[in-house]
Amino acid sequence: MLWFVGLGISGFKSIPSEALDVLSKADIVYLEQFTSPIGKSDLTKIKNATKGKFIPAKRWLVEDGKEILENAKKKKVVLLAYGDPYIATTHIELRTRAIEEKIKTHSIHASSSLTSMIGECGLHFYKVGRIATIMNEIKSLTTPYYVIYKNIIEGNHTVLLLEYNQDKDFFLDPKDALDRLVETEKGQKRNVISSDTFAIVASRIGFKDQKIISGKISSLMKIDFGKPPHTVIIPGRLHFTESDALKIFGQCVDEPYDNSEKTKKISIQMMKKYVPMVREALEEITPYYKDQKEFQGILENAELYVQDAEKFLEEGQDEVAILSIGYADGLVDALRLAKGLDPKM
Amino acid sequence: MLWFVGLGISGFKSIPSEALDVLSKADIVYLEQFTSPIGKSDLTKIKNATKGKFIPAKRWLVEDGKEILENAKKKKVVLLAYGDPYIATTHIELRTRAIEEKIKTHSIHASSSLTSMIGECGLHFYKVGRIATIMNEIKSLTTPYYVIYKNIIEGNHTVLLLEYNQDKDFFLDPKDALDRLVETEKGQKRNVISSDTFAIVASRIGFKDQKIISGKISSLMKIDFGKPPHTVIIPGRLHFTESDALKIFGQCVDEPYDNSEKTKKISIQMMKKYVPMVREALEEITPYYKDQKEFQGILENAELYVQDAEKFLEEGQDEVAILSIGYADGLVDALRLAKGLDPKM
Repeated sequence: MLWFVGLGISGFKSIPSEALDVLSKADIVYLEQFTSPIGKSDLTKIKNATKGKFIPAKRWLVEDGKEILENAKKKKVVLLAYGDPYIATTHIELRTRAIEEKIKTHSIHASSSLTSMIGECGLHFYKVGRIATIMNEIKSLTTPYYVIYKNIIEGNHTVLLLEYNQDKDFFLDPKDALDRLVETEKGQKRNVISSDTFAIVASRIGFKDQKIISGKISSLMKIDFGKPPHTVIIPGRLHFTESDALKIFGQCVDEPYDNSEKTKKISIQMMKKYVPMVREALEEITPYYKDQKEFQGILENAELYVQDAEKFLEEGQDEVAILSIGYADGLVDALRLAKGLDPKM
Repeated sequence: MLWFVGLGISGFKSIPSEALDVLSKADIVYLEQFTSPIGKSDLTKIKNATKGKFIPAKRWLVEDGKEILENAKKKKVVLLAYGDPYIATTHIELRTRAIEEKIKTHSIHASSSLTSMIGECGLHFYKVGRIATIMNEIKSLTTPYYVIYKNIIEGNHTVLLLEYNQDKDFFLDPKDALDRLVETEKGQKRNVISSDTFAIVASRIGFKDQKIISGKISSLMKIDFGKPPHTVIIPGRLHFTESDALKIFGQCVDEPYDNSEKTKKISIQMMKKYVPMVREALEEITPYYKDQKEFQGILENAELYVQDAEKFLEEGQDEVAILSIGYADGLVDALRLAKGLDPKM
């Protein structure tokens, strides 16, 4: 029998009450610490609650899984992990293998930092978009950068998990993560992250010394965030109750700021550039064709498509808006090219 | 003093161990049940764990909050709720007000159905996009429909919470929710939801009679899902370990199916239509201009822009791809219009 048991986010005291019974009855308890470190006093409490064999499990042992599964065929085995057990995909895969090998499995869920953190910051959970992880060895943060971009243009918040490496006792510093996001902006230029972006650093959520510090990235770069674990949140659109809560639940170095106002969809950025450009080109070329009826119709058509483009954008039909402005531009430029004038696109 | 305590998702046994101590020492315990119903035997266990006054709290009492805050000024008060306490924005607002009124607050987090459910289905948490709620009184599901659409084109999973109304003892049936999504498709036509869409109904997660049933919507419509609470998940792109887990952890009526393959981004849909159309128009008009050098250049330009459009789409620059194909179309149509041929756009 194999139990997947979550420890919750606050050390031994956050363990679900039913898990205490399971721990005391298990033949073997594996404690896995590779998603987050567990303090010494909590470790002692877990050991004391365990009557059977207590084995600290390294990452490779859980990923390999053979020892755990072999033991679970004959004995009551518990795999105990920080937070909620199935946030780690390794645990889902181990459970799949266990069931395939006809081992009975049970789950005890517990508080996860992912849900708790959002509430502790005072943010609305339904506004959280896809999460992303920032690893130390990866210098280019293109993937998390685009996760933030896509979230932010929908007004959603982005949770950025920072790498923790138990073997090396390494936790990526939030300042390093923020610094690299600003660096990534220089290459990608989607106007997503700058030193003015409002960010939240949530530290040691669920522990007594929990800290939530928010402000512009430039301000956060001057702060010592202390002991890990830390998580970074890049908020999207902030409801006033979220801004209020952020200020009251934690420490705001700067006034909360709506990041989504600055980061515009590419379609909106393009329309801002092309609508006036096509109108100007149209005005320039019109006199050249004033006596040619067949070409006049084309110019009138171009004007109508510019108007359509603006209407489509307003209606949220961004792609059709871009197609229309591109089309109008093509109509005008064909007439410009025919007269030997430079095209505008 | 005001404690916000999560009960977790499995009734009294999922309560964090530290919360037992808090319940026994509190002067007043408010039990709030408006996010999910709590069974009778659990209710008795909670009452027994409470030494002080036990008050079942209706929704209006928590939303109004005055009584709770008044009591918390002088006494040890606990607000106990299903799951994790701050998933409900009402609780975040109440905590904000408490701190503003100089009342000390504490939080005890617990397992939330939102995180647990994803793991119980065997899905990867980092692929979950923004969640949405389906309410009974709202007949048009445009908002959740577009949440699903945006998630699905990024390959993300969508969790759909279904309305629960404690006062009316009403829980929206997952079949009604699915049926209305199919109806919404008829008006919106983004190719997001059909009777072939693969969906998951997760019922009573954390309870002994938990059920995870997945399949095409048409198959799910024939199933009786039994007692609430239920949640619907519309998966996006499925990793093979997710499909495997879905089949092993629950019951798949149909083979798991990648919904994101069918639902293409609007930009891709448009390119599929316009690239061949512009190429055909270009071929048709070319002979009309074979002796006019100034127009030949325009046609060559159009061909280059079609090629660019394809290249941009491959690179993921969807908006620029649409602009390019629109422009090429405009160049070609200007020449068609000039010769009295119908434009193609």
